[in-house]
Amino acid sequence: MKKIGVILSGCGVFDGSEIHEAVLTLLYLDRAGAQASCFAPDKAQMHVVNHLTQRPAENESRNVLVESARIARGEIKPLSELNLDELDAVIFPGGFGAAKNLCTFAVDGAGCTIDGEVARMVRDAVAKNKVVGAICIAPVVVAKALEESGKQPQLTIGTDRETSNALATMKAKPVLRQVTEIAVDETNKIVTTPAYMLATRISEVSEGIEKLVEQVMKMA
Amino acid sequence: MKKIGVILSGCGVFDGSEIHEAVLTLLYLDRAGAQASCFAPDKAQMHVVNHLTQRPAENESRNVLVESARIARGEIKPLSELNLDELDAVIFPGGFGAAKNLCTFAVDGAGCTIDGEVARMVRDAVAKNKVVGAICIAPVVVAKALEESGKQPQLTIGTDRETSNALATMKAKPVLRQVTEIAVDETNKIVTTPAYMLATRISEVSEGIEKLVEQVMKMA
Repeated sequence: MKKIGVILSGCGVFDGSEIHEAVLTLLYLDRAGAQASCFAPDKAQMHVVNHLTQRPAENESRNVLVESARIARGEIKPLSELNLDELDAVIFPGGFGAAKNLCTFAVDGAGCTIDGEVARMVRDAVAKNKVVGAICIAPVVVAKALEESGKQPQLTIGTDRETSNALATMKAKPVLRQVTEIAVDETNKIVTTPAYMLATRISEVSEGIEKLVEQVMKMA
Repeated sequence: MKKIGVILSGCGVFDGSEIHEAVLTLLYLDRAGAQASCFAPDKAQMHVVNHLTQRPAENESRNVLVESARIARGEIKPLSELNLDELDAVIFPGGFGAAKNLCTFAVDGAGCTIDGEVARMVRDAVAKNKVVGAICIAPVVVAKALEESGKQPQLTIGTDRETSNALATMKAKPVLRQVTEIAVDETNKIVTTPAYMLATRISEVSEGIEKLVEQVMKMA
């Protein structure tokens, strides 16, 4: 049975993991017979956003791991306990949490900083020949982690020019794909799909993530 | 295009909507070509539960509508704005939110109270010959709403004897089904499935909900 880590970043598109993307990742991993284990950093979120008004909630603080546990139904561990030697692959769902809590891309763009644990884990995964999957905006996390590695990963990021340019500034190669397609970087064993960077419907997101999970399982 | 209301009760299995069930409901509605609209009551949750420790979070209050908006990516309205004449069916995903925020079954059992707006809407839906879907623990909401109606709805609720007895006390007929099956009450046009009342894997939940949505669409 293949073992896949799913790296969450909160619970909700505007300040955490995009919930649909995270759930569909878990669904297709289960269907493929994989054993999925969820992980998230044990630290405060950058923001708490009221998802009804889409405005920051003042004077409120939430913890990335505790909120991610909502998606994982309590079955989750701190990222510090992730042991790559026990996993065949890791997958990052998208959502602003990836660009706020795993790195600071949402506010700092290409000059962002990345969570130290996350950066180390991505670099170790690539070094150890594990498969890395990244959905929606999460490829910026992979790009930032590998920026100084010379690996020039090929990654989807949607069609927004500014975001694509930022990816290139972080020494990755943006690859154009339709919402239901994936990009496969065979050299670095990285699989990506645009999901809600382009999707207007959950069924489109589902199709892209199903293909991503299939490809991750094939390469793992 | 058929229009289906999805009634959420927060965001997270222990104090709100069960996230997997809610997302899969939205997925299969979209795949079936339905237009899904999300609604939730605009009021405080009964509890905020830390999903990592599964203990109540002290001194914290969250709003059912605001938290439900996380699952709906901001596209949600207060339940008070639901107009049944504009909908063909309504579906209730499960999670403790259904049994804490829509009614108080989780703490009061068969003698629970039900949110007035929710009760009225369910009774109106049945009176107007709309289809009602209920997943996991949510059939208790339907049972409570119809308790004094003489309609004796046939509903799934899993295999726990105490919960089945409570359903019967509320003058509903508990129906045994496997996790991947549905029960269809043709008279009252109510479709139910056990989901996480029985499921141990998300793929099982997915199979039951896919069938529930298919049946709701067929009858709507």
